[in-house]
Amino acid sequence: MTQTPKNIAIVGSGLVGSLLAIYLRRRGHSITVFDRRPDIRTVEFSGRSINLAMSDRGWKALREVELEEEIKKLAIPLDKRAMHVLGKPLYYQKYGKEGEAIWSISRGVLNRKMIDLAEEAGALFRFEEKVWDVDLPTATLYTGESEKSEWKAYEYDHIFGCDGAFSRVRHKMQRRSRFDYSQDFLDVGYKELTIPPNEDGTHKLDKHSFHIWPRGRFMFIAMPNLDGSFTCTLFLPFEGEVSFENIRTKAEATAFFTTYFPNVMQDIENLTFDFFKNPTSAMVTMKCYPWTYWDKVALVGDSAHAIVPFYGQGMNAGFEDIHSFNDIMEQYGDDWETIFQTFQKERKPNADAIAELSYRNFVEMSSKTADPAFLLQKKIEKWFADKHPELWEPTYSRVTFSERSYAEALAIGDFQEGIMKEVMALEGIEKEWNSKKVEHLMLQLLKEKKEAV
Amino acid sequence: MTQTPKNIAIVGSGLVGSLLAIYLRRRGHSITVFDRRPDIRTVEFSGRSINLAMSDRGWKALREVELEEEIKKLAIPLDKRAMHVLGKPLYYQKYGKEGEAIWSISRGVLNRKMIDLAEEAGALFRFEEKVWDVDLPTATLYTGESEKSEWKAYEYDHIFGCDGAFSRVRHKMQRRSRFDYSQDFLDVGYKELTIPPNEDGTHKLDKHSFHIWPRGRFMFIAMPNLDGSFTCTLFLPFEGEVSFENIRTKAEATAFFTTYFPNVMQDIENLTFDFFKNPTSAMVTMKCYPWTYWDKVALVGDSAHAIVPFYGQGMNAGFEDIHSFNDIMEQYGDDWETIFQTFQKERKPNADAIAELSYRNFVEMSSKTADPAFLLQKKIEKWFADKHPELWEPTYSRVTFSERSYAEALAIGDFQEGIMKEVMALEGIEKEWNSKKVEHLMLQLLKEKKEAV
Repeated sequence: MTQTPKNIAIVGSGLVGSLLAIYLRRRGHSITVFDRRPDIRTVEFSGRSINLAMSDRGWKALREVELEEEIKKLAIPLDKRAMHVLGKPLYYQKYGKEGEAIWSISRGVLNRKMIDLAEEAGALFRFEEKVWDVDLPTATLYTGESEKSEWKAYEYDHIFGCDGAFSRVRHKMQRRSRFDYSQDFLDVGYKELTIPPNEDGTHKLDKHSFHIWPRGRFMFIAMPNLDGSFTCTLFLPFEGEVSFENIRTKAEATAFFTTYFPNVMQDIENLTFDFFKNPTSAMVTMKCYPWTYWDKVALVGDSAHAIVPFYGQGMNAGFEDIHSFNDIMEQYGDDWETIFQTFQKERKPNADAIAELSYRNFVEMSSKTADPAFLLQKKIEKWFADKHPELWEPTYSRVTFSERSYAEALAIGDFQEGIMKEVMALEGIEKEWNSKKVEHLMLQLLKEKKEAV
Repeated sequence: MTQTPKNIAIVGSGLVGSLLAIYLRRRGHSITVFDRRPDIRTVEFSGRSINLAMSDRGWKALREVELEEEIKKLAIPLDKRAMHVLGKPLYYQKYGKEGEAIWSISRGVLNRKMIDLAEEAGALFRFEEKVWDVDLPTATLYTGESEKSEWKAYEYDHIFGCDGAFSRVRHKMQRRSRFDYSQDFLDVGYKELTIPPNEDGTHKLDKHSFHIWPRGRFMFIAMPNLDGSFTCTLFLPFEGEVSFENIRTKAEATAFFTTYFPNVMQDIENLTFDFFKNPTSAMVTMKCYPWTYWDKVALVGDSAHAIVPFYGQGMNAGFEDIHSFNDIMEQYGDDWETIFQTFQKERKPNADAIAELSYRNFVEMSSKTADPAFLLQKKIEKWFADKHPELWEPTYSRVTFSERSYAEALAIGDFQEGIMKEVMALEGIEKEWNSKKVEHLMLQLLKEKKEAV
């Protein structure tokens, strides 16, 4: 359905803001994007980013506006995890079936490209212009030098808050009555580090793997870049015995890496330099509702549902928001109130589901990777899924390599977990894990429980 | 332990702010209380208050500063619920043992008195002076006409945020990293109404009862005032078939009361006038952590832990905060950093517990009062508690008539719930509910489960 052209502001020139600009320009709307930061194309990256893992949902949203191929040129497919476990030789875990992969891409590189593309599509960007206030009923933005300076007022037909987890637009909605809101921080922080390329420009580790060094309460990961380097992230508790708080000197940092990551150590030049140069960042799960105000203001992406990064779905979820929003515009045309209502009702359960899945992955990674029962359960699930791929798809695949809803992935995951609980309670499961008996039990439970549902 | 006198600001002149002022004055500190509102002693009450139910925790905090007797003169003891169930004659439920009561007191009357007492104790009040910003590391408050006007700066040794559920002081802390925060609104709102006294000044209903008209998804309550009137509260969903949204005219309000509250109807004069004059208010559960910033700023009362009113513990929890805080000051003297740390660690689990208990009471009141299984369970618990008072104290009594911690009340409540689940699963429990068999089972479960704990 066509729409009457509107005058629309987007707050935030990040990935979601710039993709939304492209979508809305295609529908003929006038788009102005505000960002308090300078143009990312003119400055160095921040050194506080985890590389992105684009998966099916993200690609689908790019495909819709014919950008998939162009963006794929900036990305490297990873078809497996490379597990660097202390005291074990390096081993690999395939992510999915043949041909399935997640794609490593630098946030900065992607963001620069997306802004270029949005500008080509006709969006106007106003960088270094901070939004201090929003009048919700009139969709008016106020910008200025400082909170107390003169402000400029801009009135729009609609405003989209794509300004991330600490959204200024949401902040305004949050002061209203009956606005549900939560922010929950992890006790674990992260820091970006870099593994530079070999002298000939090649990668120092396998470049088609997502590298993980799991260490229980902490973890190191590395994702490849096109230039031969790896963007690495150290996840570590803020406080406690082994923690950011307790690594204060170059010597302490060196000792930490030598003890826990001996095989990374030799690949990281300027390691301690990076460690003390880059900030330690916090991770938050942010939920809120409603996401919209009348037909005037809507939150999209992290501003509506920030999640922890342990499923690699933050950007994918934001891009999927936009794809859904577009479908809903197609359906309701100029009825923006219905568009906004439908959008938030449809997306909220999915945002909650991926928040839950991401948080659970954090718990799994930080406390269960060393638990033999947990590892056995994963082994049984994989064995059964290989035998009966039509009956058992791992949750990871449903989330990553599917376009069915996150809410469904969570529900089916819980259903499978119920079955595995009974399987794991079997006497002697350690020995009989791949027996006919276990297979029959799982088939029978699948049948019984499906009938019960 | 004595303390070096400090220069302290309290933001908020409500019940918690004024009682804290009294406590801190007793320790020799200079106290300035800021409030953006006018002096409540000079204005009419707001018409958006539920009468307070002072119980043991509140009295204990007042007793410590020798105010119990004075405040009791303003309160009316209620030793029972008066249940006005449709189609049943009025019946009564005792709250506790002989002599146990909650005390009905008007928020406005109490607040005026507390400010008088704080002034007598030497606290300085600055009304109609709005705090716009707080610099946390220097404990500096900024006040002024408006957000954009000139501001005055006041620097203190310590600042206490006692400015309620929508605290400006907390708002500042909330923008920091690693500050956990949530606000959850109920779909049910409330409105204050009044039952005036008889012409001779007496009460129209029994004045030593908490009157309840439960109606499933909604409810009406009435609490007595000294002047012969009752302050009443209508709890009703915001939206839906029977809801605030659907009572828009005088005729609709009259029909609503006539249908659902026929015996209230005749006692309420100016009913519809009140209904449309008074605002409809929302109820929120607000949690956050940390509650303090260094040794500079602390949140006390609703600003740290706002709860829904269904256990009548909001003010009691705030007063208990102050009593605990005083004990901790007594212990640590001038070590304010330890005082603040100890305070938040000790009180946070209790604040979470009373939030949970209050929310559960809402669920019970709105959806379980008509459930026969729930009523049977309550009947069995009462029967067993009467037989074995040393083994089974109802959760309501632990919360209301005890000074043991809220966290303990919640934990024991859950423990008892586990036992009752097994009791209620007994075949034929409807008939055998007061049999020897059930009594023995409960005794046995109490023993077994206690050993397991």
